Amino acid sequence: MTIITRPSPVTPTVDFDRDGVQHGHLRLPWSRDDSAWGSIMIPICVVKNGEGPTALLTGANHGDEYEGPVALFDLARTLKADEIKGRVIVVPAMNYPAFQAGTRTSPIDKGNLNRSFPGRSDGGATEKIADYFTRYLLPLADIVLDFHSGGRTLDFLPYAAAHALPDKRQERACFDAVAAFSAPYSMRMIEIDAVGMYDTTAEEMGKVFVTTELSGGGTISARTASIAKRGVLNVLKQAGIVAGAPEADATQWLDMPSSDCFVFSEADGLFEPVKDLGDMVAAGEIIARVHPIGRTGSVPFDYRAALDGVLAARHFPGLIKAGDCLAVVATLTEAP
Amino acid sequence: MTIITRPSPVTPTVDFDRDGVQHGHLRLPWSRDDSAWGSIMIPICVVKNGEGPTALLTGANHGDEYEGPVALFDLARTLKADEIKGRVIVVPAMNYPAFQAGTRTSPIDKGNLNRSFPGRSDGGATEKIADYFTRYLLPLADIVLDFHSGGRTLDFLPYAAAHALPDKRQERACFDAVAAFSAPYSMRMIEIDAVGMYDTTAEEMGKVFVTTELSGGGTISARTASIAKRGVLNVLKQAGIVAGAPEADATQWLDMPSSDCFVFSEADGLFEPVKDLGDMVAAGEIIARVHPIGRTGSVPFDYRAALDGVLAARHFPGLIKAGDCLAVVATLTEAP
Amino acid sequence: MTIITRPSPVTPTVDFDRDGVQHGHLRLPWSRDDSAWGSIMIPICVVKNGEGPTALLTGANHGDEYEGPVALFDLARTLKADEIKGRVIVVPAMNYPAFQAGTRTSPIDKGNLNRSFPGRSDGGATEKIADYFTRYLLPLADIVLDFHSGGRTLDFLPYAAAHALPDKRQERACFDAVAAFSAPYSMRMIEIDAVGMYDTTAEEMGKVFVTTELSGGGTISARTASIAKRGVLNVLKQAGIVAGAPEADATQWLDMPSSDCFVFSEADGLFEPVKDLGDMVAAGEIIARVHPIGRTGSVPFDYRAALDGVLAARHFPGLIKAGDCLAVVATLTEAP
Amino acid sequence: MTIITRPSPVTPTVDFDRDGVQHGHLRLPWSRDDSAWGSIMIPICVVKNGEGPTALLTGANHGDEYEGPVALFDLARTLKADEIKGRVIVVPAMNYPAFQAGTRTSPIDKGNLNRSFPGRSDGGATEKIADYFTRYLLPLADIVLDFHSGGRTLDFLPYAAAHALPDKRQERACFDAVAAFSAPYSMRMIEIDAVGMYDTTAEEMGKVFVTTELSGGGTISARTASIAKRGVLNVLKQAGIVAGAPEADATQWLDMPSSDCFVFSEADGLFEPVKDLGDMVAAGEIIARVHPIGRTGSVPFDYRAALDGVLAARHFPGLIKAGDCLAVVATLTEAP
Amino acid sequence: MTIITRPSPVTPTVDFDRDGVQHGHLRLPWSRDDSAWGSIMIPICVVKNGEGPTALLTGANHGDEYEGPVALFDLARTLKADEIKGRVIVVPAMNYPAFQAGTRTSPIDKGNLNRSFPGRSDGGATEKIADYFTRYLLPLADIVLDFHSGGRTLDFLPYAAAHALPDKRQERACFDAVAAFSAPYSMRMIEIDAVGMYDTTAEEMGKVFVTTELSGGGTISARTASIAKRGVLNVLKQAGIVAGAPEADATQWLDMPSSDCFVFSEADGLFEPVKDLGDMVAAGEIIARVHPIGRTGSVPFDYRAALDGVLAARHFPGLIKAGDCLAVVATLTEAP
Amino acid sequence: MTIITRPSPVTPTVDFDRDGVQHGHLRLPWSRDDSAWGSIMIPICVVKNGEGPTALLTGANHGDEYEGPVALFDLARTLKADEIKGRVIVVPAMNYPAFQAGTRTSPIDKGNLNRSFPGRSDGGATEKIADYFTRYLLPLADIVLDFHSGGRTLDFLPYAAAHALPDKRQERACFDAVAAFSAPYSMRMIEIDAVGMYDTTAEEMGKVFVTTELSGGGTISARTASIAKRGVLNVLKQAGIVAGAPEADATQWLDMPSSDCFVFSEADGLFEPVKDLGDMVAAGEIIARVHPIGRTGSVPFDYRAALDGVLAARHFPGLIKAGDCLAVVATLTEAP
Repeated sequence: MTIITRPSPVTPTVDFDRDGVQHGHLRLPWSRDDSAWGSIMIPICVVKNGEGPTALLTGANHGDEYEGPVALFDLARTLKADEIKGRVIVVPAMNYPAFQAGTRTSPIDKGNLNRSFPGRSDGGATEKIADYFTRYLLPLADIVLDFHSGGRTLDFLPYAAAHALPDKRQERACFDAVAAFSAPYSMRMIEIDAVGMYDTTAEEMGKVFVTTELSGGGTISARTASIAKRGVLNVLKQAGIVAGAPEADATQWLDMPSSDCFVFSEADGLFEPVKDLGDMVAAGEIIARVHPIGRTGSVPFDYRAALDGVLAARHFPGLIKAGDCLAVVATLTEAP
Repeated sequence: MTIITRPSPVTPTVDFDRDGVQHGHLRLPWSRDDSAWGSIMIPICVVKNGEGPTALLTGANHGDEYEGPVALFDLARTLKADEIKGRVIVVPAMNYPAFQAGTRTSPIDKGNLNRSFPGRSDGGATEKIADYFTRYLLPLADIVLDFHSGGRTLDFLPYAAAHALPDKRQERACFDAVAAFSAPYSMRMIEIDAVGMYDTTAEEMGKVFVTTELSGGGTISARTASIAKRGVLNVLKQAGIVAGAPEADATQWLDMPSSDCFVFSEADGLFEPVKDLGDMVAAGEIIARVHPIGRTGSVPFDYRAALDGVLAARHFPGLIKAGDCLAVVATLTEAP
Repeated sequence: MTIITRPSPVTPTVDFDRDGVQHGHLRLPWSRDDSAWGSIMIPICVVKNGEGPTALLTGANHGDEYEGPVALFDLARTLKADEIKGRVIVVPAMNYPAFQAGTRTSPIDKGNLNRSFPGRSDGGATEKIADYFTRYLLPLADIVLDFHSGGRTLDFLPYAAAHALPDKRQERACFDAVAAFSAPYSMRMIEIDAVGMYDTTAEEMGKVFVTTELSGGGTISARTASIAKRGVLNVLKQAGIVAGAPEADATQWLDMPSSDCFVFSEADGLFEPVKDLGDMVAAGEIIARVHPIGRTGSVPFDYRAALDGVLAARHFPGLIKAGDCLAVVATLTEAP
Repeated sequence: MTIITRPSPVTPTVDFDRDGVQHGHLRLPWSRDDSAWGSIMIPICVVKNGEGPTALLTGANHGDEYEGPVALFDLARTLKADEIKGRVIVVPAMNYPAFQAGTRTSPIDKGNLNRSFPGRSDGGATEKIADYFTRYLLPLADIVLDFHSGGRTLDFLPYAAAHALPDKRQERACFDAVAAFSAPYSMRMIEIDAVGMYDTTAEEMGKVFVTTELSGGGTISARTASIAKRGVLNVLKQAGIVAGAPEADATQWLDMPSSDCFVFSEADGLFEPVKDLGDMVAAGEIIARVHPIGRTGSVPFDYRAALDGVLAARHFPGLIKAGDCLAVVATLTEAP
Repeated sequence: MTIITRPSPVTPTVDFDRDGVQHGHLRLPWSRDDSAWGSIMIPICVVKNGEGPTALLTGANHGDEYEGPVALFDLARTLKADEIKGRVIVVPAMNYPAFQAGTRTSPIDKGNLNRSFPGRSDGGATEKIADYFTRYLLPLADIVLDFHSGGRTLDFLPYAAAHALPDKRQERACFDAVAAFSAPYSMRMIEIDAVGMYDTTAEEMGKVFVTTELSGGGTISARTASIAKRGVLNVLKQAGIVAGAPEADATQWLDMPSSDCFVFSEADGLFEPVKDLGDMVAAGEIIARVHPIGRTGSVPFDYRAALDGVLAARHFPGLIKAGDCLAVVATLTEAP
Repeated sequence: MTIITRPSPVTPTVDFDRDGVQHGHLRLPWSRDDSAWGSIMIPICVVKNGEGPTALLTGANHGDEYEGPVALFDLARTLKADEIKGRVIVVPAMNYPAFQAGTRTSPIDKGNLNRSFPGRSDGGATEKIADYFTRYLLPLADIVLDFHSGGRTLDFLPYAAAHALPDKRQERACFDAVAAFSAPYSMRMIEIDAVGMYDTTAEEMGKVFVTTELSGGGTISARTASIAKRGVLNVLKQAGIVAGAPEADATQWLDMPSSDCFVFSEADGLFEPVKDLGDMVAAGEIIARVHPIGRTGSVPFDYRAALDGVLAARHFPGLIKAGDCLAVVATLTEAP
């Protein structure tokens, strides 16, 4: 593979080395039919106070996931420099064009940012954003918190998560940060296909990396907003950037031991959940059915759990297409 | 206004006077660029057994509301002629093109079916559907149950509802049917602008009319599917079509006494609910805020309740536009 | 209904009363986002020589039917004034915006011109075109020939046709013109739902009206182009506008006695014709099947003829949707 | 025609009878797939100080015309109640959805607001806006100033204009207001087809009505912004609402005596102007040519002036379509 | 070029090594705005019976070509394991998203599958499908039959075809399979630009490769369905997988000796074929003309054959654009 | 990087070595859903007379810039072989699909041609065009003139321009050609990010390269057409291809010394220019403001010049988005 040497086209309007609070933009030139010399303007906030670790906090990696943006616009507006030690870099909407459109992927190039890493400085808009994070922002960070939720088409039990990693010391730091986040559920993930992910890029640089899934459906509730806001403060406290101990709360650890956890629909139709998120399910139990819609009286397809566990994720819209993930069953486990 | 005398272009493939269970279609010719002699095929089921009242049961009046379709496809598949006395006409997806597309309005003509009544036989596809209900199906019915939910952009506390009506005897029958439905909440509605509604058309014909709002967000849960399935059976029992007494459950009656119940956003932005559905709110309390998204550090707009009550409905998507209804506060009341 | 008194916005650039050959346009103002003061320019040709009857010849009433436009652009280019007696008005593409787009209906307003008669001077673009024909061109005509084919989604045996009419003298003149056209097949039509048709508007004015269906599929062949070119000359000869006798050829008369002639698909799928156009079919014989496409091994739906006859029309594209007309069986009959 | 008796669905958030400066909205409910309970929010400003005449000032009747919005957003922000006597109602963007989209017509229903008057309370969004102006705002006004420019597809010499009117006293007041506006050019207009216009609706109510065309191309310059800002103040001064005399400037009166003033393209192609706006042209002179673009070496079409005068308007984009208005020649005249 | 080592994301739900008949899918994960965890589900059927050669049978490489899908859905449904010896792998719709949409290329990424080989496991959806065939399915096959037709925009004489190949033994086997197919015409092809083709990929692996063109226009007839069904059985018989000798029929071999065979339109317009498919043409004869459509009386462009032969292919739609292939003339030849 | 060895798919229908005038096309095969065997047909004209230098003249590198196409269609139609010595290759619309659509980038693949060099023979349509110029046309040329204007979204003072180059002899020849062009303004450019530009590709081959910006807004005036026509003749005269001396005119040289010349908008809104093109501005002066449009009374954002100079370019449309270039200030300088 080619070594990337061309500088990023992104220009930040903030100075990462300046103490105090700065609100600005990452300006990415984007020439298009309706603006020959236009740009994408990604909001960024930097709060710095002397020496100390750097936390990089990101939301809207997928544009239709809202707990991150709500917690981070709120944090950026309210965090004061003298409340911290070190530096906090806040990008509430990484894939800003997708966030503006309320879609998972970018309306510009259909780019899924979390499959575009490490990015390219001469690629599409989404790859250019990935490249800027890889080469300019991640190197500044010690700890990285990237918020996800299910977006418009999936719904999850609210959890923070980290990956099993080859470097056990790094893994320990990651799981400690997950524990500090203190969501109702916590997940230990083994990524099968990690190609193109922000997670992988950060982890390979040795960063402490925490991610979340905090419900979904393309919406947000007062309850999940609270989880997100408390979680990010807890992580900053755990890192020593904000003073005080994390506000701990009981969390249930989960595991997805195999591909049997994932259930896919084999036909198009009307989706009827038989179990709700958080319900316990036994192997063989019906968790959902899909009704053909063209005619009354047709027999629905029943989908069953392949293992015992808890319903941890589900398809969200009322209609479903063949090939869509219908539900995910996770198993209960102990803290790692 | 012109009296409509032209016959409907709709052809039913079922015989409304035949005993037994029939599954068929309402075929509405629809010439278009990709099918010169095409048709819209709206699934319909008729279950009849001797003499008795007729119930007309409908879902997907708005195409992105799923409790109705799930309960009605299920009922149509399982209800046997010998379990009833009279007739049950089931149309699980009234605005079938909208239902197929998963959208509130019809993709054919952007028609909002519930604002298209009494319809026109020479109008657009949506008006032709309305006209067929007005002139052919409603006259067959004694009781009409029309399922609604919030759709992709609103979320509601689950309730059944009926309108205050000038004919107090008819009104009593309607509220009795609402009570029989036995949703967690029940609503007494005073419609301000009833022009074009299916409700009004049915009520003006003297029918017992019940409607619902059973959550929303363009999805469905196991819980709300159960409410809908039990509700429709309860209504059929109450009407004497299915044997047995309705399965009663506690319900909380609600009222929306004035336009102060409705809160509208005055700006575009990121929607942060501060109260969740079912939360009690006091006049003056913040119920939601809207964050400008173009820049961190901007001050959000706070929206407050104008009266004491319960949060009964809210905007669903994570982004909001100026003019969108942000939330509805209802007051608690006694059964009418 | 309101009497239309407002003048048409259409301006012709030809003089209908001038002898000789004129090529010009019907200019219909059409303000739109990409041309505030734009117009639709419908090509028109007038050939006139002294006194005599007037023929109004039209193609592309539906924009994706090509035998008419090919025969009429050809005729307009080659017909000389001294070859005729009377007047020939040629509009090769009535719904010119649809013709430019190659679609059945107008891309401007989705107007199906043949369902927009008599039209409105203050309606959409398609209604304005209809209105101009109704109030300005049809009154000039003695005989009207309107070319149709199946368009992109239907295919027909090549036939000329006229309607059964209450005025038997007018009907006789129409069938004589059909016979003069001398297509391989000829059809006697009983229109069920004639509302909005150009045919009806012309017939109610007492005009001799001939129409055709000359194959389809959104294409044209050398063979059907020849049928159309010879047909139009034959009709002009029969009317005494062009000298000489029509070039007669054997024709088979057809009838569509009832709605049983039409077979509709009840499901989406892959369309497999079992009979081709012109094949004789017996009642009960399979004429086509529809394969579900989501999975191999599924049983296809078989569709059968309801009466004995000839396969006169069929669905054209390889995929079919529920509600599409799959095939038409016509019966053989004697010349009326 | 039916008398409209249904109240408008529009709710203003300002009180037209209150003294002082108010900034608010006209809220028009608009249910759609992406907001079931959404609204259109048209900004409005009311400045009132005691008794006196009322001026109704409007821009963006067509959404891509900018001198009006710039002058009126500026006026609304800076005008103080104590600077006036009477009332000024400012709606900088009448067809707000079109203005937001930067298009002539509304993206919601393709409505051309200036062809939608008097409007309908039960029509599309654009007709509902027209209806509100007709029944609620125009009755409040004594003088009406409606800003236009050429929009994205036309360019004009900058002029204010009024219509020849049957009531000569009203006409005189209109031309006096035009003269007060004091644009570089002034136009006396005879409207051929006035159906649906805001102008006609206001004039028929006896209002003093002034309109403008102030360049175009979908843009605005510092020069035309100045003309617009000075013009509106001059009109308010002339009406006695703002103190002082209008800032007079030389103006050249123009006339468009016949349809020969308008030149239309007969073919698609590349537009080459041979005369610029303001150039004097003689009858028979080439004013523009249109080059076929498919092949070099093709002969362009030349278009000539039909009468002596000044080039007062022209097609703007570099490409042109058959039927587009290519140029308008006006004649010089004396002040009426 | 990089060696591809990453495994395909495609998961088959069939076991290629199991005896019997299996109907399943190739599941290709496809994350998108309307299904974050969605998949493309390509139907596949495997019929296996003991030892023997493997045939890989494919249709809808281009999504708007129907003889292959009809013959292969039919074969998959009816072929029994005990009727064969060896293995038959049937994929009736290779580019399933294109097939569902009825388009040549994929609606997902506009990918032309037959220009996407050998594919990429990290490319777009179409490249991922190509990659799976290249690395997983082709290696299992001895003989490959890939059905094509003209699609929506071209029409062909019905023929089977194989390429001239450097390995004369392989070429012989290919031509023998073409002869066995026994279509009305057979073609010996010399591919000029073979980059990206499935054909080339299979041939370079040494497979016996047969392809077809069996009419077109985006439709199918009973006649061409029969040719396809008989052809595939004949090829399986010839390969010894199905018992018995191929049903032989007379075939006319064709050749396209040079680029002079292809005639291209130089202008947009209305397409008038002067020769039909199968007509003999002499060099210099007019085969089609193109009429300008903007004005009657314009001279059409005539296109002539450059060599003697038979009209083997033609443009299908009634309108044509500059640069479209208008017709192909093939020469008659002996069996190779 | 890979050496490109695959031949271009483009076929020219002109012979570059033949004396005389030829009008033809560059035919680029482009398979698509609506034409399986379609092509892009780029008009080209070659005028040759004996020995002498070759000029390559191009327009519509961006499809919405019209001075180049008008001057070059005109030149191609009127230039006679005996008027020149050497060769003139004219491509009035390089990115022909973009030019047809009137858009900056290609509607086929959204390709910005001037960021697609040196191109790829196996890339998208835009890259294939770039590749053909790089490998086939540029090698034939001694002098290259590429016309630009601002397009639909920018407007410029009319200038010709050349780059500062490492080879001072080549640079001198370029600036001499700029001076010969004799536009009202002339620019000495230092390109920051030259990756992908036609300019760079030509300059690196040692060609004399001249470009222009001749106003903009997606239109053209009689004045700028004259500048372009005279400029291209002047350049041909200066090169010795056309006889005679260039028609000299006064020109003002400009410079853009730093990134401070460029002013970007930080918010969406209504664009109000305070200075017009050609106005002198002082550092700190307001050059434009941006009004928020959602509500009257909001404070606009003011944008100021960062250095003294002349307003050389500006945003064109009446609305502006965050990140759009609002204006460019250039400094006055001496001829280089």
